[in-house]
Parts: sequence; C-alpha cells; structure tokens
Amino acid sequence: MSDRQGEAARIDLTGRQLIEPGDFTVAELESIFELADQIIADPGAAMDLAKGKLMASLFYEPSTRTRFSFESAMMRLGGRVFGFDDPNTSSVSKGETLMDTAKIISCYADLAVIRHPREGTARLFAQSVPGMPVINAGDGGHEHPTQTLTDLLTIRHLLGSCSGHTVGVCGDLLFGRTIHSLVKTLNRYPDNRFIFISPKELRMPEYFLSMLPEGSYVETDSLDDVIGDVDILYMSRVQRERFVNEEEYIRLKDVYILDRHKMKRAKDDMIVMHPLPRVNEIATEVDDDPRAVYFKQAKFGMYVRMALISKLLGVAK
Amino acid sequence: MSDRQGEAARIDLTGRQLIEPGDFTVAELESIFELADQIIADPGAAMDLAKGKLMASLFYEPSTRTRFSFESAMMRLGGRVFGFDDPNTSSVSKGETLMDTAKIISCYADLAVIRHPREGTARLFAQSVPGMPVINAGDGGHEHPTQTLTDLLTIRHLLGSCSGHTVGVCGDLLFGRTIHSLVKTLNRYPDNRFIFISPKELRMPEYFLSMLPEGSYVETDSLDDVIGDVDILYMSRVQRERFVNEEEYIRLKDVYILDRHKMKRAKDDMIVMHPLPRVNEIATEVDDDPRAVYFKQAKFGMYVRMALISKLLGVAK
Amino acid sequence: MSDRQGEAARIDLTGRQLIEPGDFTVAELESIFELADQIIADPGAAMDLAKGKLMASLFYEPSTRTRFSFESAMMRLGGRVFGFDDPNTSSVSKGETLMDTAKIISCYADLAVIRHPREGTARLFAQSVPGMPVINAGDGGHEHPTQTLTDLLTIRHLLGSCSGHTVGVCGDLLFGRTIHSLVKTLNRYPDNRFIFISPKELRMPEYFLSMLPEGSYVETDSLDDVIGDVDILYMSRVQRERFVNEEEYIRLKDVYILDRHKMKRAKDDMIVMHPLPRVNEIATEVDDDPRAVYFKQAKFGMYVRMALISKLLGVAK
Repeated sequence: MSDRQGEAARIDLTGRQLIEPGDFTVAELESIFELADQIIADPGAAMDLAKGKLMASLFYEPSTRTRFSFESAMMRLGGRVFGFDDPNTSSVSKGETLMDTAKIISCYADLAVIRHPREGTARLFAQSVPGMPVINAGDGGHEHPTQTLTDLLTIRHLLGSCSGHTVGVCGDLLFGRTIHSLVKTLNRYPDNRFIFISPKELRMPEYFLSMLPEGSYVETDSLDDVIGDVDILYMSRVQRERFVNEEEYIRLKDVYILDRHKMKRAKDDMIVMHPLPRVNEIATEVDDDPRAVYFKQAKFGMYVRMALISKLLGVAK
Repeated sequence: MSDRQGEAARIDLTGRQLIEPGDFTVAELESIFELADQIIADPGAAMDLAKGKLMASLFYEPSTRTRFSFESAMMRLGGRVFGFDDPNTSSVSKGETLMDTAKIISCYADLAVIRHPREGTARLFAQSVPGMPVINAGDGGHEHPTQTLTDLLTIRHLLGSCSGHTVGVCGDLLFGRTIHSLVKTLNRYPDNRFIFISPKELRMPEYFLSMLPEGSYVETDSLDDVIGDVDILYMSRVQRERFVNEEEYIRLKDVYILDRHKMKRAKDDMIVMHPLPRVNEIATEVDDDPRAVYFKQAKFGMYVRMALISKLLGVAK
Repeated sequence: MSDRQGEAARIDLTGRQLIEPGDFTVAELESIFELADQIIADPGAAMDLAKGKLMASLFYEPSTRTRFSFESAMMRLGGRVFGFDDPNTSSVSKGETLMDTAKIISCYADLAVIRHPREGTARLFAQSVPGMPVINAGDGGHEHPTQTLTDLLTIRHLLGSCSGHTVGVCGDLLFGRTIHSLVKTLNRYPDNRFIFISPKELRMPEYFLSMLPEGSYVETDSLDDVIGDVDILYMSRVQRERFVNEEEYIRLKDVYILDRHKMKRAKDDMIVMHPLPRVNEIATEVDDDPRAVYFKQAKFGMYVRMALISKLLGVAK
C-alpha cells in the first residue's frame, strides 16, 4: 500500500482543470486524497506551499460556504485570493464574452475557481484558458466536483478506502446533484452497493438508475427498515426551491428525519454524512453521536481543496 | 509598575471570547493594553505574529469602518481574512441555524469576528464553538466591546492610566451604546467621575444611572459650563435613525457642537475623543488642536485589535 | 541607455499621489516603466517587496477588471488588500465628509486606491492625506491614469520606446477618456503623430484638437484607408451608455470593426491595442494574429501597477 501511495503521489496534475469528477482517473483522485491525508497529518508543513500564488474566486452566484472552503484552503497554503461574490455581475461582463473574461483573469491569477448558475459555464471558461488550473465550484444543477471529492476523502479517511461499502443515500434523490455525483464516482471503485431511500416522488430518476450496474442497488421508502444495514448513511436536504407546491414540500420534508431513536438500530461503526447546510433532516441530538461526521466532513472539504489546489498549481512535493 | 506589567503580559487569553467588556477582568484588559503599547512602540515586530492564521470576518450588516479596523489589524499581524459584508445573508443561512453556521466557520477559521443587527447573536454564536476565539463587533444596540477597548487604550496611552479622570460625555446619552459601555467600564477603574452633558430628551436612562456609584456623576445640559472641568471630553453623534421625528432631530443635533470658541475654555492637557464618524458635532476647525485626538483614537482602534487578536490566538509572546 | 536607466531608477516617488498622468514628469513615468521592465524580467524577485504593507481598495462604483488589476498587483508584491466594491456606500459615509473618511483610511492602510463616479473626488481624497500614496482608479469621465501607464508600458516594452510612432486611434473619440489621456501623454514624448479614425458624430472634440501641436494629427472616417500607415492601432469600444438613442448606437457601433481582412493591409510589425473589455469592435479571428497584443496589454497593466505601487510605497530598490 505504501508503494502505491508513493506512486500516486508522483502523479502530476499541474495545469489540469476539474470541471466534473470524470475528468480525473481513479488513480488521479487517489493521488489527491493521499496528499490530503498528508496535509491532515501535518497542516503546518503546507503553510507556504502556494506562497506567491494567486487564486481568482469568481462566484457569479453567492455560495458563502463553498467560497469560504476554497478561500480558506488557498490561504492555509499561503496563497492569496481576490474575486467577487455577487449576483450583480453587470460590471464583470460589460458585454464581453466569457472567453475574454477568462483570458483577462488568466493575466492576473494562477488558478481560477468559478461558480455559475448556468450549466456548462465552467467548462466553457476552462476551455478558453487551456493550461490554466480551473476548478468548477458548481454550475447550476449540473456538477459540483469538489463536494464529491470531499465526500470521498471523508469515506476514505474514516473507513480506510472508498471500496466495499454499503451506502445508504436518503432524501431528495430526484434533484440531488450532490448525491448523483457521489454515487457515480463511488461506482468507479469496486464492490460498493447502494440503498436508495426516498419517498416515491423523489426517487432516483430512471435515466440515472439505468446507468448503474445491475444488482448494485436497491430502493426503499423506509429509512427504519435499512438503517441497520449501511456502512455509510448519506443524508441530504429536501430543498424548498425544488417544489412548485408549498404543501407538498411540508409533507415530504419531515418524512426522513434522522434522530437518536433511529440511530439505535444503526451499526456501531457506520458513519452519518451530510453535505450541509441541514435544515431539520438530522435532529441536533444526533450531533454528539461519534458516528455523526458531517462537521468533520466540512473540515475534510477544506483539506481536500488544499490538496487539489496544490496539485493543480504543481507546488506539492 | 514594570513588575505589574510583566505580570499582566503573562495573562493567558488563548481561546477566550469577547462578547462584552465584562467578560474580561480589569487585569485581563490591562494585559491587552500593555501588549498594544508594545505593538505601538514597535509595529514591525508584530508583522508575522499571526502568520498562517485565518480570521472569518462575518458582517451580517455592513459596518465598513469597524470591518476595516479588524481586517487591517489581522493583516498587520501577518494573518489572512475571509468573510462577507452584506446585508443579503440569505446564502449564508439557507435555513440552517446560527449554531450550525458557527460550527462550519470553526472548520475553516482560527478566529471569528461577528457583527449582527440582532442583540445576543454574538453570544449565541460564541457558545456554539467553545474554545474558539470569537469577537463581538457589535450586536444591535447592545454591545460593541472593541470600541470600548479602543477608548480605554486611547485614554491609558495618552493620559497614563484609566483611573482618576473627570470625564465629560456629551451628546446622545439615551441611546448611545458606545457611551454606556465606556462609562460602565471606566467605573471598574478607581476614582473616575463623570459629567453627563445632553439635552433633557437625550439624558442618560434612569436604569443606567441607578447602577452608578452615588456621587460619581453630575448631569448638565450646558457644555460651556463644564468644559473647563474635564480631563476627557467624549463627544458623540446624534444619530438621525434614532428619531421618529425629523424636526426633533434637526433641533437637537446642533445644540452641542464643539468649536474653537468652546475649546478656549478647556484645560490645556485635556483630550477630545469621538468614536467617529462625526457629522458636525465637532467643527473641523478643532481638528488641528493638539487636544483633538479622535483620529489618533481610530489608529489606537487598530492597535488594540492587533493586541486582542494576538492574545486570543495565543500567539503573543 | 543603461546609464539613463540607472538614473531613472533612482528617482524617488515615495509618498507621491497619482491622480492624473500630468502629476508625474516624463522622467518619473520612465522610472516606473523601467522598474516594470525589471519586474517583467524577474517577477519572483518582487514577491516580498510590499510585505507587511496594506492597500485600501475603495471602489465607490464597481469596476471588477480595474480592481482585480490593482489587487493582484499588490498581492504579487506580497502586500495585503482590504476594501469594498459596492455601489451601496451608505455605510461608508454615514454622513461624514470624504476628508474624514480619507483620514480614517490613512490610519489603517499604507496606500489607497480610489474609484469614484464623481469627477474630482480622487483629488479631494488625496489632498486630505498629504504624504499618503493615493492612486486614482478612475473618477467619472475624467481621468484613469493607470490605464494610460498601462498603454505606455505596452508601447515602450514592445516597440522599444514611446517616441517616434504613427498612432491610429479608432472608435469613440468624442467621449473616450482613455484615448484622450493616451494622446495627451504620448504628446509629451517627441515625434509622435496621430491619425484619428471615427465617424463624424464621434470625432475628437474641438477643445481637445486645439491643444495639440499643429500638424501632429490628421482625421479620417476610414479605417481601411489608413491602417497600412500606423505603427500602433488603438481600438476602443463604443459604449452603449454614451448614446441617448438606441438606433444611433446600433448604426455606429459596427462601423469600425477590425477583422482579418483589414489586418492584411497593416504593417507586419504594427501592434493592435485595446483597453478591454471589447464587445465586437475586434473580431475574435484577429486574436491569434501576433500583432494583436490586447491581452498582453492587460498583463502589462498588472506589471505597471506593481511598479507604481512599489515606487509610491518606497519599497523598490
């Protein structure tokens, strides 16, 4: 294993762009996670890795948590950050094309993080500046690859690897961008099986299920029935903005609440994850349970971004 | 005195939280002022004190001056800052509780500065992350402790100590959060007496007066009558937003204007303070008078925050 | 030449303020360009020049590109930046005068960059804090001196000097602040002549022409006729906001589009410049032409600001 680690660490990702998890091979992802593990073990050693480097933090829609995660990651590497976080982007574009904006940004920054409400924008931006590290921090309902990297590092760090797990995913499986990306990426690792837990109205979409290996998943509408079987329970928020109908939202949002009572039936060594923010789908009484790792997960999010940025900048040893 | 200084400097405030001045003992406050004095004497020596440390600057309502004071303080210590300064905080909360927000911030930052329009919010935030340094940068009309620290450092640095002074406070004493906090804190030091100067409509509130030691203050509505008696004249703004009635505001705002004429009757070694911004309660002709120290006071505000941050982070020698 | 360079480098600009290009002599401008050339040759050597220094970035109107250029310049020198970029400046002023704001900013920052929609504001700000480096980043339609410095550095770096060129300037010459400033400043160098290319409605204003040396310019409405004569073709945007009439805008905006066809008639060693953003006045097919230097120009903008900041802070060797 330590041989494979050394090998993975030598994988060079300088100048690469991450728009969706599929842009990287499993070996490349693993090389990021290995660097993240080293940073977790000794964060101080990373303090000057990105000294003299600049990140452009381009949030065409506000997403405070994601922005903080990226900016703190860059700063903990000793790098600098400039950017904007404003829905009023009139001053940014002034009628110019995104390609021109990208080229100008590449004059000032060594790496760009872009969040945009329109699907495909991050890819277009990246293609305009080949050779410049660009990270997609979310493009509409499409992709948000560093959330997936966060999830995988959490699993790998706490459970030893990303393979061989029974993974329960619970909540809004119809619209859940985060969950689709996680399941797709975990399927690139061997021996994972999934339990999809949701009300009928929010089931995994057919097109998505049709892409999964036969027998790799089951569906249920009862969290209680299956909670004892899972190694990982991935909870997700039922977003109000996804519903046209207020009553429908109210009826469904409370159905799959995880509380202390349900946790009694879960394995002793399972883990509960959540991309945060939560509203009420996990009762706060669960927070003190050692199996609740969602706040740790937020911290892993910073570490995995530190590793990713270091690899793309080519500054990691 | 130098012995007591050495003693105070050894007071450890690592991981402490400052929500109101009463959270710290006088000895603890003094230890901050002593460090501030050292920084004023040699600012360059502090340049890397907070290297590798991150401050979250969370302004749930804009307050540019206060934000600049905190951010420049952190940067002058070699630390980094991320945050927001926006009344549109919808993207911050997304329905999650302040407790959850606090926990996530604690994943990314080493210290948090919070400003919020609702009283009590800073305390709630701080209690959610015990052991993490949190500084209240103002919660509604309630507290703004670093303004008080600024005022005390100014007095201490320019007059030698925070004891034994005759302090005139002038302006809006009814709503003046800054003034209430200053008077309360100066009362923890021995031998200060106060002259409260205001129109009847803006007198110190009864509940506040009832907390003061008997004989420690007098009230007057004439600045001219008492200006010759004070060691410190603390001027304050009459805020338009405190009045329901526009005529009432116009009638009262100009009554207590300090000008060169009034300054002639003041002692040669008194000082004039003001929390800034001023509107017109001090004529600009007074600015060149050496007794006018309100711009120095703004600079002391940065220095005292440098000292405070260093102590809470545990990085001061 | 190397002697004159050494001489220029010794010109001390510490504490100076740049509100319009005329504030600096040609020798002083040259000293900035020489430092910029050194930085271009070895950017790494500048990495810690402004360590421990703070820039206040005060954008009273948003101008993302200009702000990024200044902030990245300061960060590439190892300095720190705080500020705002928001049209909602109510919290900044709170009724106080700009003079008071300037004095408070000078307590926190070592250098201020100010952008304001009102003409003359930068000058007023600068006069309030004599001895503090202040840079005008644009005050209304009046001045934007660092754009002019950017243009001159580009010409000097790519063509060897700012003298002896035939300069075609094309587009909106009536309202073009950038172009007026460029022509005025190039006229302080010997032996430049100008060809003003525009529709009649957007000709150079009479008052401006009357200031130019006799015989130093010609006017034309045909880009095709003169493109073969110029050493420098400076293209500019026709800004929609300058027109009261939408049809007028549409009719004129496309008249002077530079495309591959027109470029065939231009000299082999001429250069095409543009202050960016462009809308469609240069076809993207021109971007790959080695004579198209407008994206390089954006990068020179960062370098010249690095040099300027270093000189004003007095940190350049």
